[in-house]
Amino acid sequence: MSNDKRPNDERFERGARALAAIDGRAGQNVVDALADIAPDFARYLIEFPFGDIYSRPGLGLREREIATIAALTALGNAAPQLKVHIEAGLNVGVSREEIVEILMQMAVYAGFPAALNGLFAAKEVFAARGG
Amino acid sequence: MSNDKRPNDERFERGARALAAIDGRAGQNVVDALADIAPDFARYLIEFPFGDIYSRPGLGLREREIATIAALTALGNAAPQLKVHIEAGLNVGVSREEIVEILMQMAVYAGFPAALNGLFAAKEVFAARGG
Amino acid sequence: MSNDKRPNDERFERGARALAAIDGRAGQNVVDALADIAPDFARYLIEFPFGDIYSRPGLGLREREIATIAALTALGNAAPQLKVHIEAGLNVGVSREEIVEILMQMAVYAGFPAALNGLFAAKEVFAARGG
Amino acid sequence: MSNDKRPNDERFERGARALAAIDGRAGQNVVDALADIAPDFARYLIEFPFGDIYSRPGLGLREREIATIAALTALGNAAPQLKVHIEAGLNVGVSREEIVEILMQMAVYAGFPAALNGLFAAKEVFAARGG
Amino acid sequence: MSNDKRPNDERFERGARALAAIDGRAGQNVVDALADIAPDFARYLIEFPFGDIYSRPGLGLREREIATIAALTALGNAAPQLKVHIEAGLNVGVSREEIVEILMQMAVYAGFPAALNGLFAAKEVFAARGG
Amino acid sequence: MSNDKRPNDERFERGARALAAIDGRAGQNVVDALADIAPDFARYLIEFPFGDIYSRPGLGLREREIATIAALTALGNAAPQLKVHIEAGLNVGVSREEIVEILMQMAVYAGFPAALNGLFAAKEVFAARGG
Repeated sequence: MSNDKRPNDERFERGARALAAIDGRAGQNVVDALADIAPDFARYLIEFPFGDIYSRPGLGLREREIATIAALTALGNAAPQLKVHIEAGLNVGVSREEIVEILMQMAVYAGFPAALNGLFAAKEVFAARGG
Repeated sequence: MSNDKRPNDERFERGARALAAIDGRAGQNVVDALADIAPDFARYLIEFPFGDIYSRPGLGLREREIATIAALTALGNAAPQLKVHIEAGLNVGVSREEIVEILMQMAVYAGFPAALNGLFAAKEVFAARGG
Repeated sequence: MSNDKRPNDERFERGARALAAIDGRAGQNVVDALADIAPDFARYLIEFPFGDIYSRPGLGLREREIATIAALTALGNAAPQLKVHIEAGLNVGVSREEIVEILMQMAVYAGFPAALNGLFAAKEVFAARGG
Repeated sequence: MSNDKRPNDERFERGARALAAIDGRAGQNVVDALADIAPDFARYLIEFPFGDIYSRPGLGLREREIATIAALTALGNAAPQLKVHIEAGLNVGVSREEIVEILMQMAVYAGFPAALNGLFAAKEVFAARGG
Repeated sequence: MSNDKRPNDERFERGARALAAIDGRAGQNVVDALADIAPDFARYLIEFPFGDIYSRPGLGLREREIATIAALTALGNAAPQLKVHIEAGLNVGVSREEIVEILMQMAVYAGFPAALNGLFAAKEVFAARGG
Repeated sequence: MSNDKRPNDERFERGARALAAIDGRAGQNVVDALADIAPDFARYLIEFPFGDIYSRPGLGLREREIATIAALTALGNAAPQLKVHIEAGLNVGVSREEIVEILMQMAVYAGFPAALNGLFAAKEVFAARGG
């Protein structure tokens, strides 16, 4: 039979490309860490957020990362993912200055502690990337 | 004495201009509703979020509203403010399509119920503005 | 047998007195509303929060209501209970001005939307109690 | 060409069957309400939660609804979805008594207001379905 | 005097038995850690959640732990307690596979970061208990 | 020109005095940590929360810290700030016993895990201050 692709291969491949472009090594680390406990969840993570949502044409990747950084800072209970997306923001063209502005703005909507914790997360990410 | 301005007049005036430009009538409604219970809080609302934060040059208003819409949708406990900022997004150049994309993306970070409630809020705002 | 009390009667009675003193009619309304769906939960509500916690001597009722009003405003997902405790605060000696100050302060820790929603809840409670 | 299915048709069809079996009319209402604002999101809602997650064999539907009712009650900011899943729980074999127990238990993990709001949501759902 | 029990002794003893059966050593560790700062809170923890709620007959312990694991994962701000209840779930007959399913399902209701953090907590608990 | 003050100098100086009186060294540490990433945010932190809110006359500092400790415990996602404000509470006259009472009370409004995490934060702060 000529159709040897699983039904979702296209979503998966599109998602894997998006994940690599946006999150770089950090995205792959999450996928690897899931391998022994929930490999299907790694697949869903690639397929739905990245294969479906981030691959949609109606909003730029820069705008998508601005939205994600804001949301994760406001929620305040997802520090590892916030760092991954501060990296991702830098990868898709959000500047350090813009990221700091987004984080400061979250003081208005989620309070000063949420903004402070976001700023200290950014400080770590910026330091790890250097100068 | 020639210096008849209160120390914060400049912040207040800058904030009032930003509030009017961004939130339009909805922002003034909030200020009016505070008049009899907490007039100082109306002043703080104008001075800090709008006079200080939204007036900073490091991030565009379009990007600021993308961040705010994302955060309020993710938090999920501020429906009236989310509607005000969906309006505000439209006022500063975020398109309806982009707003819908931001709201859908929040399913990834805050769950499908948060995204659904955001989409239904947008539906109300879009309907009230017409066509 | 002379000991005809159930083991928890003392907690229940102490809790019922505390509930009446603090929440007044609003507390009884909650108890009544639970009667047909979860009467045991009404009993727990009287026994644990009111019979155990609010009846402890180490913190005054005024201070307890300040803590509760702050927490419910910050959480932002318990509007009916916030109104009950704004009433309760007034019942145990927290002034309207103090309540407004607590609600405004929550802008710092939970964001302006949480504070605004708290202020509008207070506005309704104050109006219902009259000038 | 004989393969006229879109790649995701299988997921969609499996999800649509699961949605109908679990949420009944309420699930279809959500899909319908999304039709004019975000039809793709209706498709994602069918494909990912229902086509992927709820269709997995490793956990029974009864257990899945217990988990969802607990989570939505604890989060406290998704009242419409909580009602849909209280219905869904009843549809897949969770009894009224069990639902009330789950909701009461949430007082331990998310506080009494979250539990109370969950119980009052259940009261409405039970009343609408009749005695 | 013949009645030498304190009024709540029965609740306390029932709760202590339930805590030991459900949480094992981890529950006792929490009680021990409270001894010097809030010994009464250790007593309340035994009496209300375990003596009252978990000891009720209307819902099985397996179902109660499914609900608790779901809620703590969704809330996302109680990592130590989530680990205790992943252990507790295993103690009362929820399988590793079922726990992983519950955690993955939380992506739908609280977002992928909450689910990921839950899965990594489970990975630690499973590893500590061995293969 | 004789008016050489920037418009906000008065707010800043009032806020700096309040921050030093309330948070002591811990407040200055936060300001210092922001110096290289977001110095303007350090200024806002001094001006709005401390120069505006904490300096208002309508509520005592003791009551303000009770409210803040309660809110941060209930939110559960701001551990470093909670410790700073447990210190601050002690600095402005809230006793250790009162702080423990506030933290225990949060079990009622935000669940036992939030209260437990607050109590363990207090245990660390009390131990670091000695005796």
